Amino acid sequence: MDQDKAMVIFQPSGRRGEVPKGITVIEASRLLGADIEALCGEKKVCGKCVVRIEEGHFEKYNIHSSRSHVSPWQEEEDKFITAERREKGFRLGCTALVEEDILVFVPEESRAGKQVVSKAARDIHIEHNPAVNIYTVEVEPPTFEEPTADFERVCRVLEKEHGLKDLTVDIFALRQLPTALRDGDWNVTVSVWNDREVVRFRPGKAERAYGLAIDVGTTTVAAYFCDLTTMEVVDTVFMMNPQCKYGEDVMARITYHMTTPDGLQRMNDDIIEGLNSLVDQAIENTYPPKKKKKKKKGEEGPHEFVEVPEEGKTYLRLTKEDIEDVTIGGNTAMHHIFLNLNPEHVGLAPFPPVIHHSLDIKARDMGLNINPASYVFVLPNEAGFVGADNVGVLLAEEPYKKDKIALIIDIGTNGELVLGNKEKLISSSCATGPALEGAQIAFGMRAAPGAMERIVIDRETKEVDYKVIGRDAWRKYSEPKDMKAKGICGSGILDLLAELYCSGIIAKSGAFNKEALAGHSRFRLNPDTNQPEFVLAWAEESSIDKDIVVTQRDVRQIQLAKGALYAGCKLMIKRMGLEKLDTIKIAGAFGTHVDREKALIMGLFPDCEIEMIESIGNAAGDGCRAALLNKDKREEANWVSRNVEYMELTVEETFQQEFMEAMQIPHMTDEFPHLAGIVPEEILKQ
Amino acid sequence: MDQDKAMVIFQPSGRRGEVPKGITVIEASRLLGADIEALCGEKKVCGKCVVRIEEGHFEKYNIHSSRSHVSPWQEEEDKFITAERREKGFRLGCTALVEEDILVFVPEESRAGKQVVSKAARDIHIEHNPAVNIYTVEVEPPTFEEPTADFERVCRVLEKEHGLKDLTVDIFALRQLPTALRDGDWNVTVSVWNDREVVRFRPGKAERAYGLAIDVGTTTVAAYFCDLTTMEVVDTVFMMNPQCKYGEDVMARITYHMTTPDGLQRMNDDIIEGLNSLVDQAIENTYPPKKKKKKKKGEEGPHEFVEVPEEGKTYLRLTKEDIEDVTIGGNTAMHHIFLNLNPEHVGLAPFPPVIHHSLDIKARDMGLNINPASYVFVLPNEAGFVGADNVGVLLAEEPYKKDKIALIIDIGTNGELVLGNKEKLISSSCATGPALEGAQIAFGMRAAPGAMERIVIDRETKEVDYKVIGRDAWRKYSEPKDMKAKGICGSGILDLLAELYCSGIIAKSGAFNKEALAGHSRFRLNPDTNQPEFVLAWAEESSIDKDIVVTQRDVRQIQLAKGALYAGCKLMIKRMGLEKLDTIKIAGAFGTHVDREKALIMGLFPDCEIEMIESIGNAAGDGCRAALLNKDKREEANWVSRNVEYMELTVEETFQQEFMEAMQIPHMTDEFPHLAGIVPEEILKQ
Repeated sequence: MDQDKAMVIFQPSGRRGEVPKGITVIEASRLLGADIEALCGEKKVCGKCVVRIEEGHFEKYNIHSSRSHVSPWQEEEDKFITAERREKGFRLGCTALVEEDILVFVPEESRAGKQVVSKAARDIHIEHNPAVNIYTVEVEPPTFEEPTADFERVCRVLEKEHGLKDLTVDIFALRQLPTALRDGDWNVTVSVWNDREVVRFRPGKAERAYGLAIDVGTTTVAAYFCDLTTMEVVDTVFMMNPQCKYGEDVMARITYHMTTPDGLQRMNDDIIEGLNSLVDQAIENTYPPKKKKKKKKGEEGPHEFVEVPEEGKTYLRLTKEDIEDVTIGGNTAMHHIFLNLNPEHVGLAPFPPVIHHSLDIKARDMGLNINPASYVFVLPNEAGFVGADNVGVLLAEEPYKKDKIALIIDIGTNGELVLGNKEKLISSSCATGPALEGAQIAFGMRAAPGAMERIVIDRETKEVDYKVIGRDAWRKYSEPKDMKAKGICGSGILDLLAELYCSGIIAKSGAFNKEALAGHSRFRLNPDTNQPEFVLAWAEESSIDKDIVVTQRDVRQIQLAKGALYAGCKLMIKRMGLEKLDTIKIAGAFGTHVDREKALIMGLFPDCEIEMIESIGNAAGDGCRAALLNKDKREEANWVSRNVEYMELTVEETFQQEFMEAMQIPHMTDEFPHLAGIVPEEILKQ
Repeated sequence: MDQDKAMVIFQPSGRRGEVPKGITVIEASRLLGADIEALCGEKKVCGKCVVRIEEGHFEKYNIHSSRSHVSPWQEEEDKFITAERREKGFRLGCTALVEEDILVFVPEESRAGKQVVSKAARDIHIEHNPAVNIYTVEVEPPTFEEPTADFERVCRVLEKEHGLKDLTVDIFALRQLPTALRDGDWNVTVSVWNDREVVRFRPGKAERAYGLAIDVGTTTVAAYFCDLTTMEVVDTVFMMNPQCKYGEDVMARITYHMTTPDGLQRMNDDIIEGLNSLVDQAIENTYPPKKKKKKKKGEEGPHEFVEVPEEGKTYLRLTKEDIEDVTIGGNTAMHHIFLNLNPEHVGLAPFPPVIHHSLDIKARDMGLNINPASYVFVLPNEAGFVGADNVGVLLAEEPYKKDKIALIIDIGTNGELVLGNKEKLISSSCATGPALEGAQIAFGMRAAPGAMERIVIDRETKEVDYKVIGRDAWRKYSEPKDMKAKGICGSGILDLLAELYCSGIIAKSGAFNKEALAGHSRFRLNPDTNQPEFVLAWAEESSIDKDIVVTQRDVRQIQLAKGALYAGCKLMIKRMGLEKLDTIKIAGAFGTHVDREKALIMGLFPDCEIEMIESIGNAAGDGCRAALLNKDKREEANWVSRNVEYMELTVEETFQQEFMEAMQIPHMTDEFPHLAGIVPEEILKQ
């Protein structure tokens, strides 16, 4: 390795690479694409860029390093980092200079991406019928005449007062019983799973039990922390999938397993470790001793509060053991890796998963640090890559109960499609890749401050106007230096393709119209690659001191992604013999941000009236939440997973041709009647 | 600590103490009461006394030591210990000298006690209906038309061919499936627990599955290693309960828990570690690459054999994963400690256990190193100290199915009694203590070579004749030096009390008849304690160069034990309002060795005809085996445990008086009509 360079690894993003020694950790993060929040522009005054230089993880990466591999502590850091945190290795990213190899952990609050990834729970209707219920019972103490054992003594009352029969008990829970009974003066609160098994005993009367509904995406992992007794969503926590360091998409993860001896174990370790950090985060959020937690009005529920006399306040204080149920969903590859099941065959035709059916697994067997006697309910898989996450979407949307024919699109790194109604449902998956999320695009980035999320290009002048996340004013109403653009996120990318096309910058084939653009100040050939590119924002408008451009290769990547999706939709509609759809529902963060008109223009999915397109948010997560709060949904999940017909797109005879055609920007008005009026006529006529 | 002494700890017996530096490990074992086999009399020629000087365990005991704490290796040891075993710390106990503190592990084959403790399985009738069954199925490989997941594909055939419906699967087993299916070319052997859950997948066709039935006694632990498919007992393995180091009886163990912060955890760790060594032993015994295993004729079953070309032989070769089911029983205290359940309340009136019902617990949750997906079936408890071991006895004897009224006595460190027939059963427990097993007796020892197991005292001369374990000829037919007596074991102790009484050496009160004995060469006052004692074997007949005596205190200990047992029996008979018993069944090793006539003379249990007394061997273990091989017995266990009425003896009004009276040697001929004729008339008339 170059003597003047040092290896830096960022966690949890997994971004890594060599950087020149002597630059700040923030500068290194920018070079390597690991977004750290830096509101003050590295003036050491905002304190947002706190990171932890980690020691514990070094051996894992064979880096022999220590905290002294960064420059010494500076006075300015005292303002933002307590002595205790300093002891743990916390530093300001703008102040610590990289001097040797380091591993940098970027805490959630310092990650630039966090605020905008929309994984908030939607207000869907869920019937209250959780798998874990709590009962407080009072029993008579044993006597010589009636020396029945503790457990049978409690069961007798549970049967009499609550009709619970033939209960079994987890051994970890049973160990709590003798002490709980006596500490509670013969009153005990019993947590019962599925009316069948006792998973916890607490002394006296307890009011609450909590659960987590987890959606493991290829790129993001979101968890809803729910009160099982009130159904309230206490908190939503999320993170990057720590497996991202092994590859962006599911095939890359599977390949990593197949090419690395302990690859599966490593990826499994990482997701489990990651989920445990989500658990920590959810629990910590309930007890902020330093600052009062910001809550929206009406969000406050009747929690178990803890008095903090030195602050004169009470806080909700929970422990990990208070999490007594978990539901989890993910695509088939994420499902298999989470369960440490060989995902190899999911990646090879005919793509059989190891199992379809849901699983109930003890949290301790998964290594999850919650109440160890609790179960993790793993949602069932449909087929191929259409996994438990899609079952979650179906549970949330319930197309199998409806008359209307819906096309439900869950666009993540992998696209999953479901089409049909209560008569019949078919599903398929398409490899959209991560381009629509901003990856594999020269200036692509996640939805974070500085990301161009809306783009408009003047049809005549081809001048670019845009809006960045974190600033309300559009470019044309701002001073250039105020824009601080950094890159383009998913919603901006969709806008981009449509706008490039409508303004005549690219042809329907996706190729730059070189003749039309000749001499335009924004169009040029890249001096290094000699490839055409178009400037979206000049260096002076950026926070990275570079022109932000879209390249010919970027356009191709976007075309590949949208082509895969469109071809999939089209083949499914054909298979069902349909003339028209009643509704198109878009799940995922993508759906929340997409401009429906632009999506139609670029041909992301079949033509339809704009009003028919609906965003359904993180439906996969909502489905997990439904299964958490209503155990009947678990049965329903198994039923629906076996009653959706899976369609393997890649073996369809016409797939290749459909895919090639779908790469083009749509122009045939018979296939896309609704484009008329929103795409300039001269463009459509090309 | 004395500079000239070293601390030596023997495992698994737990015997420990300081010994003079420079003595052999065997000499140290003798001083501390840890029996090591030494057939050749320490001439370094038999190689029986192999021990392992352990390093790994030192920190646990805060001993900073190493193998160099014994004297250097000697040439003679090469004959008996391979280089590989030498590397692991094996030495001859007669050759290695103690130079500093050491921990000595005595392997089962070097333990003097092993051959005679009779824990062999009896030939009881058990219907073949194991909880774990294996099925080999062949499935079609997946295609695009039929891409069903591996698990559902296998289940479909299991349902069609074997009627197994709605199977679930353990996650550890599921991880084996994709590889097993493909390695077996779409043939797979499936282990199914209780027709309900898959616990193992093996590629291709497998013929066998194995199980362990474990009886955890306070002092000894025995395990039957059974072939679940043929019901054959492949092997019987046993060991001392490693918890013995914390105390001899159940109350001592409970006290240890109550007085030591991590006492329960330590005892639990020890029994789990011990059980794992039993598993190792059972598995190792199936593959003896150095010497062919001695098998009785007809014992050889159709096992999975392994060829060992260098020996030109095939051996049964198994792994720990081949153990796919376990049943386990023990008294309530052993049950609780095994499960890491607080045993405190079992030791306090009214003695409620934590649970009665049986438990199915994953082997991995217990830390047992067998197939991790397998279940451990823990037999249910009755009440108080009458635990799962007694349920085992009942399962083996089935008094609840019989007309005859039986008194079933399981004498171990704790005595458990059941009385009744199919109309009604009552149970109780009595604290016999370990005296009847040879503990707390000056020269008491376990049934091992050199132990006096039969004793006859001449009514006139009061000369002693006896037989020792390991030598067929009685004393009067032998040269004194050939006897090599070491002590007295359980059966000898019973003989002893009866013979001392019948020959007039002790009175019915148990006191030595000092007048009658005055001047007899065998009777004397101990010079140190001034207590009366009677010589059973002179130093020249012993291998320990000491007179072997019985003291007044010994007699009292035996009286206490037999008094507790007798009083218990009597109170139970009274409670049932019975006039006579149809049969007395004695379980445990004790029952195998007891001389029924002598037991009657000393008043161990109610008077009856000698023919009515039956030894039923290790019935607790047989019951565990019945539950292992026939799952209906598990249901039966829960039923019987709730249908035996428990009687707490210590709260009976007349208990103290009965106990005091029962301490006496019986003399009232109306209560003991069968004594007439076997006890000299002049003795009875005293």
